[in-house]
Amino acid sequence: MQKITLLIHCKDQKGIIAAVTSFISKVEGNITYLDQHVDVEQNVFFMRLESEFLIAADFANVKTIFEQTIAKDFSMSWDFYVKEIKPKMALFVSKYNHCLYDILGRFSAGELNIEIPLIISNHNDLKPIADQFNVPFYHVPFAKECREEAEQQQIALLQKYQINFIVLARYMQIITPKLISLYENNIINIHHSFLPAFPGAKPYHSAFKRGVKIIGATSHYVTEELDEGPIIEQDITRVSHINSVADFIMKGKDLERTVLARAIKLHSERKVMIYDNKTVVFY
Amino acid sequence: MQKITLLIHCKDQKGIIAAVTSFISKVEGNITYLDQHVDVEQNVFFMRLESEFLIAADFANVKTIFEQTIAKDFSMSWDFYVKEIKPKMALFVSKYNHCLYDILGRFSAGELNIEIPLIISNHNDLKPIADQFNVPFYHVPFAKECREEAEQQQIALLQKYQINFIVLARYMQIITPKLISLYENNIINIHHSFLPAFPGAKPYHSAFKRGVKIIGATSHYVTEELDEGPIIEQDITRVSHINSVADFIMKGKDLERTVLARAIKLHSERKVMIYDNKTVVFY
Amino acid sequence: MQKITLLIHCKDQKGIIAAVTSFISKVEGNITYLDQHVDVEQNVFFMRLESEFLIAADFANVKTIFEQTIAKDFSMSWDFYVKEIKPKMALFVSKYNHCLYDILGRFSAGELNIEIPLIISNHNDLKPIADQFNVPFYHVPFAKECREEAEQQQIALLQKYQINFIVLARYMQIITPKLISLYENNIINIHHSFLPAFPGAKPYHSAFKRGVKIIGATSHYVTEELDEGPIIEQDITRVSHINSVADFIMKGKDLERTVLARAIKLHSERKVMIYDNKTVVFY
Amino acid sequence: MQKITLLIHCKDQKGIIAAVTSFISKVEGNITYLDQHVDVEQNVFFMRLESEFLIAADFANVKTIFEQTIAKDFSMSWDFYVKEIKPKMALFVSKYNHCLYDILGRFSAGELNIEIPLIISNHNDLKPIADQFNVPFYHVPFAKECREEAEQQQIALLQKYQINFIVLARYMQIITPKLISLYENNIINIHHSFLPAFPGAKPYHSAFKRGVKIIGATSHYVTEELDEGPIIEQDITRVSHINSVADFIMKGKDLERTVLARAIKLHSERKVMIYDNKTVVFY
Repeated sequence: MQKITLLIHCKDQKGIIAAVTSFISKVEGNITYLDQHVDVEQNVFFMRLESEFLIAADFANVKTIFEQTIAKDFSMSWDFYVKEIKPKMALFVSKYNHCLYDILGRFSAGELNIEIPLIISNHNDLKPIADQFNVPFYHVPFAKECREEAEQQQIALLQKYQINFIVLARYMQIITPKLISLYENNIINIHHSFLPAFPGAKPYHSAFKRGVKIIGATSHYVTEELDEGPIIEQDITRVSHINSVADFIMKGKDLERTVLARAIKLHSERKVMIYDNKTVVFY
Repeated sequence: MQKITLLIHCKDQKGIIAAVTSFISKVEGNITYLDQHVDVEQNVFFMRLESEFLIAADFANVKTIFEQTIAKDFSMSWDFYVKEIKPKMALFVSKYNHCLYDILGRFSAGELNIEIPLIISNHNDLKPIADQFNVPFYHVPFAKECREEAEQQQIALLQKYQINFIVLARYMQIITPKLISLYENNIINIHHSFLPAFPGAKPYHSAFKRGVKIIGATSHYVTEELDEGPIIEQDITRVSHINSVADFIMKGKDLERTVLARAIKLHSERKVMIYDNKTVVFY
Repeated sequence: MQKITLLIHCKDQKGIIAAVTSFISKVEGNITYLDQHVDVEQNVFFMRLESEFLIAADFANVKTIFEQTIAKDFSMSWDFYVKEIKPKMALFVSKYNHCLYDILGRFSAGELNIEIPLIISNHNDLKPIADQFNVPFYHVPFAKECREEAEQQQIALLQKYQINFIVLARYMQIITPKLISLYENNIINIHHSFLPAFPGAKPYHSAFKRGVKIIGATSHYVTEELDEGPIIEQDITRVSHINSVADFIMKGKDLERTVLARAIKLHSERKVMIYDNKTVVFY
Repeated sequence: MQKITLLIHCKDQKGIIAAVTSFISKVEGNITYLDQHVDVEQNVFFMRLESEFLIAADFANVKTIFEQTIAKDFSMSWDFYVKEIKPKMALFVSKYNHCLYDILGRFSAGELNIEIPLIISNHNDLKPIADQFNVPFYHVPFAKECREEAEQQQIALLQKYQINFIVLARYMQIITPKLISLYENNIINIHHSFLPAFPGAKPYHSAFKRGVKIIGATSHYVTEELDEGPIIEQDITRVSHINSVADFIMKGKDLERTVLARAIKLHSERKVMIYDNKTVVFY
């Protein structure tokens, strides 16, 4: 049995669901999941559909027919994923190790349907963890004077390993515009605050100073505007006057781990669609 | 413009969504919301659909055609609601006033698309609140020796006011089997624990004794088995060793208020379907 | 039996707790609650203590002795409250009714140990609710051209009713600097966002536009800087792409109600201390 | 600078705090944290105190004096911990790897002030993870016919490594009464439900069947009554009709990881006191 996921968005029109579900029926697919959303303000229709095929289907052919009929009729943007083909994820890290341990632990425990062909870091500190989990580790320094060269190295590595998406697991460096455009909507960052509160550096210190009663973490796609990209997932935890900045940081680590792990899972299972700098997340 | 809500469940089969959405298109409806769920274990299909009709539709005719075609073809159980027709809710109370104040406050603030034609109570204590909000109040004592008479009185009142569903806002008496069967899937209770933990009497005392770190409240449909009916909504709050039983009760009041209000809203907006003693809640 | 609450803050020094608890023992008080906090960065000590007195105590005398001994020795800022004396709260409202219903409902249900001698509003819309709950209602228009006069009227009313603290239950007007200074640390506002995200007007619209996955509400003391005062309580709820701005507003109402009610309870039970634009909240 | 933690409980009496804080002052300690709790029903006083000593203190002598004066006067149960001496934790596992990866990841990241001298398992499956993190792994089969022998082996290993407390990281076997009594209040379990709901086997399946809207996890001390020991920490997550049992299990893994990690942290930092089958947790 083969499983596919179909993601669609297009201008909202009458008859889209009927057309798509009829098509899937016609090609002998059995719909196991369907969720749709209409952005009424923007008049945009979104749909996520999963289907099983008991008889081995010729997916290349199915895609071609879909493209030439339904997709054309409704001017759709669409993606078609075969579940068995795992997306390839690159991890970018610096010196913080908690997200790295967490992701590699979950990956090793079989909780993520992905491959992790490599880790890239601007420091060598976390190489032992990569070794421990047997993942190739590349040290690509990112000092001001060598940014262009670093970018070239990063891109070469990503292409060599045919990377589909990048996760910044507390990678404390800027991503260059070129890399962002190469991996548009495919670079996931974890920011250690409840965005849009406390963007930029040292959010836990700012949160402590402001006296908030709740801190958060935010996972979002990277765009050229720092901490302004489409939000995938957020979560929060309570703090109080008894907590120091160090406590905020410690509690925050738990949030960062969990929120980033959820975002990776959602993205890799093709549950996130992006439109108008926001996300539609089909749970 | 008129709005309708269509709820459907039936054996899962190919082509249901296509058939229903095509039907709505054909009768000039514009689908503004569609959500569906397949219970894979039970092989049951559930669907909730909202549609707008710009041209005044002859709903009686639409329903007849739907019944004779789609509903028949797929052996559907289905309900068809016109949004403008508000469901009529009866409130049953005893002596606790916090849920009553909350519901009447929300109702007065225009947050609930219902009518509240009457309040029934086994005590007279809360009559002043009913008066304050100008809702007819009926005192129907429910002592052991007069249960049958009380049940008759209750049913007569519910029929007189053409009540669609009943909310037990901390009504501390048993609902008779006859009343339950008359209002099957239409009696909502709030239980002051995180069911199935602590069913029955004095759950806060039991929770305190057990030393839990979290307490909850549960809103569910009433069935003949006490606290065993389909759960609509639950929520929780943290407690700690510094909290006394009195604190549990006070914190619990907030939970009870909120959870019951959400359940009323979900039920009255036709977002809840019941199957196999569980609920499908379309948010 | 009489109960008192003692709030203290001063420079952190050795022996404070020993001195205070010894003093309470000496005057025949039985400590039923003690919590303390040291702000290590600022080197400030905070303490909240509750004590029962079985024998009727001469509190005026107790206070004098405390002032002339312990408080003087440690250069303390301190407050001494007798539990039976309920604080008097004024409600300021405009046109939104959900917080007003909620507060008056809780008050009527006996959940708040306060008095509510009056409601002040810049509109007449909510007068019927005040009437319904039998609370004097004063219409004090606050147009640009009559601000000074309005401020005078407000202050006269607050003094006439010997008001201790003010709650802005979605009061959509500015509080004048004079009123803020008269009621320093005694004016509580509810802001309908997770501060410091989305200060100012229309936070739900901004949150929707930014595509956040969680919205919040914040109760804080009013200072001259808009939405910058010490935070008393915050809470959040999840939202998703299926929620419209109208949904944000509806879900937000529940947050606003609950967060404001908690802040009122904490403040009125003398559980909040303010220092350095932050709060110490003793639960 | 040296840091100590003092835990006390005794019958509630006047003057305890004053006596203890005076004592710490006298021995030149600087109190950095003090929290206390009175169980009014049971008339028991609990206290947790942290103190710094700038001048190297003779702790043996301090303890002797404390024992012979304050502790004796008030008939105290007490514990005195020097922060630099890390507690030694043994991990018991079976076949589930998610908690093991999480704990070893946090430990390696320096988030836990403990030592982990060994892992004991009734299966060999997780040995590679122990190797990966360089922790000695002992395979102690626990079949019915060899329980006594297994118990002897377990106890011998625990004694050899001078283990202070045991964590059952989804160890799916019974702990023998002898081991429980040897490590009374020092064996921590993670149960994959919101206790007391769904004790025993297959709680996610039961939760799914009951149709709950929230699932939980509970970390508690092991006593002879299965899943009845004092609760240290609980947490929950939302589920809905779209979630299968497999989803419950996956979401539950995240809860189990987090709740167990918090319990380990609280226990190892001496923040938990046990009384009357409940815990006092000083955050």
